[in-house]
Order: sequence, then C-alpha cells, then structure tokens
Amino acid sequence: MVRWEPDAYGRLRDAALSLFVEQGFEKTTVAQIAERAGLNRRTFFHHFADKREVVFAGQLASDDLIATEIRAQPPGTDPLHAAVAGLMLASDTLYEQYREGAIQLGAVIAASPELQEREMVKRATLADTIAAALRDRGTSEAGATVSGWAAVAMFFVARNRWNQPGNQRPLSDLIDEAHKEFLTA
Amino acid sequence: MVRWEPDAYGRLRDAALSLFVEQGFEKTTVAQIAERAGLNRRTFFHHFADKREVVFAGQLASDDLIATEIRAQPPGTDPLHAAVAGLMLASDTLYEQYREGAIQLGAVIAASPELQEREMVKRATLADTIAAALRDRGTSEAGATVSGWAAVAMFFVARNRWNQPGNQRPLSDLIDEAHKEFLTA
Repeated sequence: MVRWEPDAYGRLRDAALSLFVEQGFEKTTVAQIAERAGLNRRTFFHHFADKREVVFAGQLASDDLIATEIRAQPPGTDPLHAAVAGLMLASDTLYEQYREGAIQLGAVIAASPELQEREMVKRATLADTIAAALRDRGTSEAGATVSGWAAVAMFFVARNRWNQPGNQRPLSDLIDEAHKEFLTA
Repeated sequence: MVRWEPDAYGRLRDAALSLFVEQGFEKTTVAQIAERAGLNRRTFFHHFADKREVVFAGQLASDDLIATEIRAQPPGTDPLHAAVAGLMLASDTLYEQYREGAIQLGAVIAASPELQEREMVKRATLADTIAAALRDRGTSEAGATVSGWAAVAMFFVARNRWNQPGNQRPLSDLIDEAHKEFLTA
C-alpha cells in the first residue's frame, strides 16, 4: 500500500535534482532520492518509471498544453506561427517560474550522454505532438512535420539563451526572436 | 595483426544487414556477423566501433558531402535552399543506388528502440553539420540551427516516401517536394 504523502511528487523531483547536481546523474540511486525526500522507493515508483523520467517530468503536461493552444489558433494562421504561439504559452505558463531549476537541469543533462540521448527522444515526441496538432488544423503532412521540427529547434535555441547567466528576458520573447531570425535568415 | 581482406568493410556491412533482417538487431552478435562475412571479430572492430555503428555506416561521408555542397552554394542563396541543395546532391550520389538496402535498414531500425534512439542522435549530428555549414556562409545562429533541423525533417519525410513499396521517384525529387510543401504550408 502506498501511503499518501503531501506533494510526494514535488519532494521527489526536488530531491532528485539536488542529488543530480551534487553527485551527478549516474551516481544517484532511486534509494538515495527517496531517502532525501523522506519517502520510500515504492512511493518513488508510484510517481516515476525510473530516475531518467524525473529529469523530464512535466513534459507531458507541457506537450498537451502546446497541442491545445495550436488547435485553438484562428484559421488562416500559418503553421509556424501556430506552433510558436503554443510554445510561447507553455513557456509563460510552465517554464518561466522554474528558470533556476531549468538551468540546473540543463547542466545535469549536459554532463550525461545517456540523458542527452533521452532528451533527443523527448524532442522528437514534442515535434510529433506539434505536427499532429498542425495536421488537425489542415496542414499538409510534410508541412506539419517540418514545421514541428523547426518550432522545436526555435524552442531549444531560445531555451539556451534563456538559460544564460544574466539573462533577464522571458523565454516566450526569446522564442519569438528565434522565429523572426529564422524568417529573415 | 589485421590481415588485409578485399572489401572487408562492405562484406561486414552486407553480412550484418542480412543477419539483422533475418533474426533482428538485438539477437545478432558481432561474432555471427564476422563469421558470415568470412572474417574474424578483430577485423570487425577494425572497421566498426560496435554493431550499432554498422547500421549508420556511411553517414559521416554523407554529412561531409552535404556540408561541402552547402558551402559551395552561390552567395545570396537562402539557408533552406542551400541546405536542400546539399541533401539533394548526397541523395543522388550516395543513397539512390542503395534503395533496397535502405528499405531493409529502415525496417531493422523500426523494430529496435535502441536503434531508434541512436538514429535520433544521428539526426542531431546531421542538423548540427548543416547548421555549421550555414553559419560559415553568414547565416545567423538561430537561422542556421532552425534551418538545419527543418532540412533534416524534409530529408526524413522524403526518405519515408522514397522507401514506400512501388515508389519510382528519386529521393532528391521527394526532398524538393517536401521543401515546397513546407514553403506553401
């Protein structure tokens, strides 16, 4: 029986992130994460399939929000603009308040080839999500797939700039900027 | 001492592909690949770091050719057109003659999550190669990165169409078509 714990998910995520930062992703065990969160392994596996999933926690919620926003764009909005609108909303709603955590997480991923490989798969999932939402709006197969990947690339260019020390600009501004740089390149 | 064997590379690649098709990637060992090619394990490791690399053999040569062609595009050519020109040349030069092998390889990758993850990393390498060549031509950072990923997406959309049973059109035509679909989406 899994005992109910107030905000077990958030406590496990915070404990995992602090351990990954202190001693690296590879050296951290699920037992250590649970112990630091004051919970047991069973509660961990109730919330996460494995320790890699903690790193990418929240992406599913973010992907859903992006897809919903894309589908809600006015008819006639071109696919890249629709995709960018979805990414900007998710940035304001889900990312902006976690900038410090996102910077730490970025460093953890950069230090682990296993996590980098996993992040590429997560990017592909996001590109597929965007492309599916665009196809629902009537965009052609190739147009939707290519727009999905282009939008994901804009998002990651912007996130790299947002993560820089000293940056004061919100992520959504930087996505808009990357989009404009692409259109005028 | 590695004995010189005529076209050991090609024999190993063909042996690996036929074994992957027959019994799957996961069940195939390096020893089996070497045996079928009439060579030893040592010769295998002289040519390939591991059995995953056999699947992606040739990508480095292809990436080099694409980058060289992009750099050779006339000044003023927009980044996406320059990237597409590089992909079309590589398709005509390196891919067209191996369509049967590419179809078989596509099925092997589709059956293996490990290879799919690896293919995503290879796509990122190609996107980075294209972006670096575009930056050398003066394209902005964001413009080059986003164009790199958009071009890679066009390439994979086109390759999926090229791999369909009954397709008669060359890969480079299908890349051109995907590019036009994106521009008019």
